[in-house]
This record gives sequence, C-alpha cells and structure tokens, in this order.
Amino acid sequence: MATQQHVFDKALALQHSDIKAGHFTGMTSPDYWNMIGPFGGMTAAVMLNAVLSHPDLLGSPIAMTVNFAAAVEAGAFDIQATPVRTNRSTQHWTIQLTQAGISGAPQMTTTATVVTAARRETWGTSDVPMPAVPKPSEVAPMQLGEGAMAWLGQYELRGVSGLVPQQWDGGGDHSESVLWLRDTSPRALDFASLMAMSDMFYPRVWLRRAKRVPAGTVSMTTYFHAEAAQLAEVGTGHLLGRATGQQFRNGFFDQAVQLWSEAGMLLATSNQIAYFKE
Amino acid sequence: MATQQHVFDKALALQHSDIKAGHFTGMTSPDYWNMIGPFGGMTAAVMLNAVLSHPDLLGSPIAMTVNFAAAVEAGAFDIQATPVRTNRSTQHWTIQLTQAGISGAPQMTTTATVVTAARRETWGTSDVPMPAVPKPSEVAPMQLGEGAMAWLGQYELRGVSGLVPQQWDGGGDHSESVLWLRDTSPRALDFASLMAMSDMFYPRVWLRRAKRVPAGTVSMTTYFHAEAAQLAEVGTGHLLGRATGQQFRNGFFDQAVQLWSEAGMLLATSNQIAYFKE
Repeated sequence: MATQQHVFDKALALQHSDIKAGHFTGMTSPDYWNMIGPFGGMTAAVMLNAVLSHPDLLGSPIAMTVNFAAAVEAGAFDIQATPVRTNRSTQHWTIQLTQAGISGAPQMTTTATVVTAARRETWGTSDVPMPAVPKPSEVAPMQLGEGAMAWLGQYELRGVSGLVPQQWDGGGDHSESVLWLRDTSPRALDFASLMAMSDMFYPRVWLRRAKRVPAGTVSMTTYFHAEAAQLAEVGTGHLLGRATGQQFRNGFFDQAVQLWSEAGMLLATSNQIAYFKE
Repeated sequence: MATQQHVFDKALALQHSDIKAGHFTGMTSPDYWNMIGPFGGMTAAVMLNAVLSHPDLLGSPIAMTVNFAAAVEAGAFDIQATPVRTNRSTQHWTIQLTQAGISGAPQMTTTATVVTAARRETWGTSDVPMPAVPKPSEVAPMQLGEGAMAWLGQYELRGVSGLVPQQWDGGGDHSESVLWLRDTSPRALDFASLMAMSDMFYPRVWLRRAKRVPAGTVSMTTYFHAEAAQLAEVGTGHLLGRATGQQFRNGFFDQAVQLWSEAGMLLATSNQIAYFKE
C-alpha cells in the first residue's frame, strides 16, 4: 500500500545534481501559494531543507535568517547551500535561491544564513511563560473565506485573540495575535515545518490599523530552542503562537514571535521586518 | 588645527582597493578589544560601514544579520560587500569578513546580510513604550574594574537595573537589564554606532544564573527603525537600552533588545543568540 506524500514534503522536495557541492533544485508548490509567490515560510523551509540534506551537516539548526529579495516565480528554482565555516561544535552556512531569468541568467530571489550546532545538555530555563489560553479543542478553527490564499488551507489555525479584523474601519489599537496552529493534514513537527510556522502571522500593520494595506516580509530570523527529539515529542500536536509588533515607521514594521508546544515548551522565537505602504 | 579622530571612526576606517567591486580592507582596533577578539558590535559596525561606503548603495539600513563564525584575530582583515539584488526601493547585500590564515589562504570569520531601503513617510506608531526610568544624570555611571575589557571603556554606561551581579552566588531570578549608554568620548549617533550599541549587553545567562559561565554571541540581527535625520537629532545624547532573555536551553540562549532615544523614540530592535557552557 503506497503512503501518500504530505503536501509539505512534496513542496520541500529537492533534487541534487551535486550534493557534496551543495547544489539542489526544486519546484514551487501551488499548495503553498501566497499572493504573488510562494508562502515565505515555505521558501524558508525549503532553503533550510537544503542545509539539512547536505552530507557535511554538523548538528541541528540554531538560527536562520532569510532575506526575501524578490518574489519567487512559479516553477523551478536552484538552491546553493554552502558550509562556509565548520568549527568543533558549530557550523555556518550561506544559502541562495535563484531562478532562471528571462535571459536565462540566474536571478537571485532569496538569501539566507543558517547556524547549526551540536548541542549538549546544560542548565536551562524560560523567561517567557506560555500565555494562559483555552485549549485548542475549546477554540474554533478559523474558516477561510472565498479566494483565500492556497497556503492558508494547509494550516489549521485556531485564533485565540488578535484575529484578522472583521471591519477595516481604522479602529485598531494593538498588534498582538495569539493562535493555535498545526498542519491541516497531520504531520509530525520538524525543523523545516517549525521554520515555516514561524512565518505564520498576517501583517501586524493590518491589525494595528484595522486597515488592509500592501505589506510583505523583507527579512526574517528564527532561533530554534529545541532539538529533534523535542520536536518529535510534539508530533502532530498544536503549537501556540504569539506575534506582536514593536515599531511601525516610514514603510517598515517589525514583528516578534514566540512558538510554544501545547505542553508549554518555548520551541522557537522569531523576528521579522516587513514593508508596508501608505 | 587638526581635529583628533574619534576612536570609533578609527576602528571603522576602511581602505578600498576596488570600491566598485566592494572589496575593502581594515585593521582591528585595540581600543575595542574584547576577551579574545574585537567587540562583536564593532565587527558588525565595520561590516555595515563597507555597505554604507559602497558607491552603489540604495537608501539606508533596515536590517542587518551578523554571524560570528570564528574569532577575528588582531590585525588586518578583508571585507567583501556585494549588492546581490537591487530593486526599485530595496537592496540586498551579502558581506563576508576574512583574514589571511596561517597558510595564507583566507579564513572566513564573519558573514552578514544587510537590507537597505529608500524609505517614504507613512503612518507610524510604537507598541513598546520606553520604560519609565530616572534621567541619565540621575543614574551613576558604571565604574570599570581592573582588567575590564578595552571596548567597555569606550562607552558610558549608566545601569538602571539588571546590572552585572556583584555576587556570583547562583541566585539570579530574571534576565532583564536596563541602562543608559553613549560613547564615552562624544560622537553623534549614526547607523554604524547604533549597530555597535545593539550588541552592548553582557550575556543574559550571567544575570539569570548569577553565575559567570563562558558565553558568546553566535548570530545577531538588528532592525533599524529610524533614518539618518532622526539619528542626527539624537546627536551625542544617551540611548536607553533594554535586554531580556527569552529561552535558555542546551548551550544556547537568546536575547531581545530595544534601544530608545532619550526622547522616547524606538530607534532599533535587536535579537541575538549566544552559546553558553555548563
């Protein structure tokens, strides 16, 4: 009996022409399509997947920064993942995603850096406790309207607070959203899906202003506070995500994110800066 | 009458052998020396300076990520700053700092990405008000002990709360520090000095545990929420900085930072992830 491949794994799939040289090729997925390109979290995930697939990988991801320089177009892309420095317990990567341009010359659409590390058990604690919220089963799943972007359908989102404004009346007064999230079709959490989920939140400027203006992520950085075994424990369970804006000024705003397991473990923290118009 | 060059500008100085190609050379500064290499904020600033010196620069910095892959050694270094994608109003840069190794082959010590943009006036607001604290003149400047790292002497730090523990007794119970800061020798704020100042805080793990364990920044990301004119308005005034840790686990912790002008404008937000031992 053949097992059907998960849509996320399909979108994540890479071929390698020269794996030791870190050269991979892939295809954008209509399942994770956003407005004019793939969901940014999916692009980040597939670039992380190149690092995770590289035979020289040391340890697991600690930090990833992705810079969205241009929209990725539907179709084939190339990823070059290079371990530029390998130390005893940490490794530094640079990654670029390019697509063949009209002229055939490769166009750079996305750059990224990743730090991986072999972690050891140490003392630890969290200074950001998970907010006290109703359990996932007690929160209604969000219903997607007609014409919703494809990628949204791949996630089960249960909004606790700070939902997309129902009235665009300019009456916003805060920028915090809290929601439960997981893959719509169950899939065990891993680094790639956690990376994608750190880009889950709609633009803070929409909430803060109750006004829908053009906006998009320019750069995103995610820190991974958990290891593979801890992600495996989460399995197909829900994550609780919180996003807040800090500063909005002259065309740009930032967004700070925390992602906890349902058991209250802070798995990842993430920040991004996005442009907006008007 | 010759004006003496500020130590920060000396440390920031770059020569260019081929400025259009983005190739610069510089020298580490003993004035900004840390334990086993330059103060990371200074390394970040000098890499940003390469971008700001490039003839193809578009706009001003929005975001910078710096990955500290290896200690920079005392002496000469090379910086390669490349504008990998220039759009109508944003520009994406990759930067690498290398040093000649023992064999003479260049060793990569530091990678960075920078996003710059031509900003336009828009609606704006802040969702993180400056904490209510005593004025700089009402807070005592911190006195450096014997054997303090050189770079600390270049900053006037007035600790409001969360100072370096006086007793390393394992009694820590929070990870927040608030302080006033500026250059010891007055220098008008600019993007390079703001970048350096975003790396001003001592390791959160020391405060949280009241225990001095080996620790160091692995990756740092700063978002710039102000433009050159707004930094010029700050001039040689104090900034208020706040740093908090979110998660400490298995050898790594993160730190979230905000930097305000004395007038209460949030100029920059920054995050970093650092390693620690034990």
